[in-house]
Amino acid sequence: MYTLPLARLIEAFQKLPGIGPKSAQRLAFHVLKQDQTDVQLLSSALVDAKAQVKACQQCYNVTVEALCEICTDTDRDPTALCVVAHVQDLYALERTGDVRSGYHVLGGLISPIDGIGIDQLNLQALLGRLQRPDNTVREVILALPPSVEGDTTSLYISRLIRPLGIDVTRIGYGLPVGGDLDYADTLTLSRALAGRRAVG
Amino acid sequence: MYTLPLARLIEAFQKLPGIGPKSAQRLAFHVLKQDQTDVQLLSSALVDAKAQVKACQQCYNVTVEALCEICTDTDRDPTALCVVAHVQDLYALERTGDVRSGYHVLGGLISPIDGIGIDQLNLQALLGRLQRPDNTVREVILALPPSVEGDTTSLYISRLIRPLGIDVTRIGYGLPVGGDLDYADTLTLSRALAGRRAVG
Repeated sequence: MYTLPLARLIEAFQKLPGIGPKSAQRLAFHVLKQDQTDVQLLSSALVDAKAQVKACQQCYNVTVEALCEICTDTDRDPTALCVVAHVQDLYALERTGDVRSGYHVLGGLISPIDGIGIDQLNLQALLGRLQRPDNTVREVILALPPSVEGDTTSLYISRLIRPLGIDVTRIGYGLPVGGDLDYADTLTLSRALAGRRAVG
Repeated sequence: MYTLPLARLIEAFQKLPGIGPKSAQRLAFHVLKQDQTDVQLLSSALVDAKAQVKACQQCYNVTVEALCEICTDTDRDPTALCVVAHVQDLYALERTGDVRSGYHVLGGLISPIDGIGIDQLNLQALLGRLQRPDNTVREVILALPPSVEGDTTSLYISRLIRPLGIDVTRIGYGLPVGGDLDYADTLTLSRALAGRRAVG
């Protein structure tokens, strides 16, 4: 066995997802060779992120304040709301620069097989936002993945929200830009066909 | 961009080898969900390992003392010495339980293309150990990989040490246990043929 502080570091690395015994060992030996400053930076970044980062009280984005930067941004379109499964999806959409509305992060998708039901998701909070007397949202844009879970969740939300008189739309699915028909899987092609539009 | 403490954590993870932007993001989000205790453990394990773990003054194994556990182990065979490139190799050999001698960790292999010459390796220290008046080592076992760098380094060490009247051997190379001839690469088969032995 390695000397104790090294063994403990390898063990701690192994608790991270996708890091097996070999990778953990490689990372630990790298740390021994790394600059003292870099090691200190990672060490305090871990504690700081854990202590300071929390979920936005309104949309469940990551934030250090009560409300996130997007929820407090007065330039956002108040008539729409974009629903995503994970915080990472929110930032993927932000990189397009095409979403002008605020967001709502569900924290997952309905998936009975993984034990994720409607109570594990931030659905009640979504409904609450839309039912507020001062609600201005007229369209909810579902940006959920094209999967069984994504489809189920989209359908569920749609049935939940339509009765409020709010439009529910879902982002388009089909061939990715740069994608080759010949290499696309059957399900993607089916979605692309179903999502066809008039030309010109 | 993510909120600052999260962005900093992602950045710090990316400095580790084999961790790209996507993996760093995945690890950082995992940390946010992880138990406070586990995060604290990793954070302090990093600082502790960096501060406490150093190279053994004699063999360059990892240790928290001046000399490592193997160098201070009086049950080791003092007539042999096993030379490895990296500390990880030392522990791979220890797991066999077949090495009864001490070790010497070179810290790499001679590789002009990577700028690693004889001065970057712990070769002078190896020679020093063998030239001490109280030296008891009669055989140096080279456990270096079968590569251009491993071969060069083996040859160099052999020429350095043989004049001292010490035997220099190198571990066997060939087909790994469980390996299939049909799937072995040409170089491994060449080594296996060259390393053939009389049967029975």
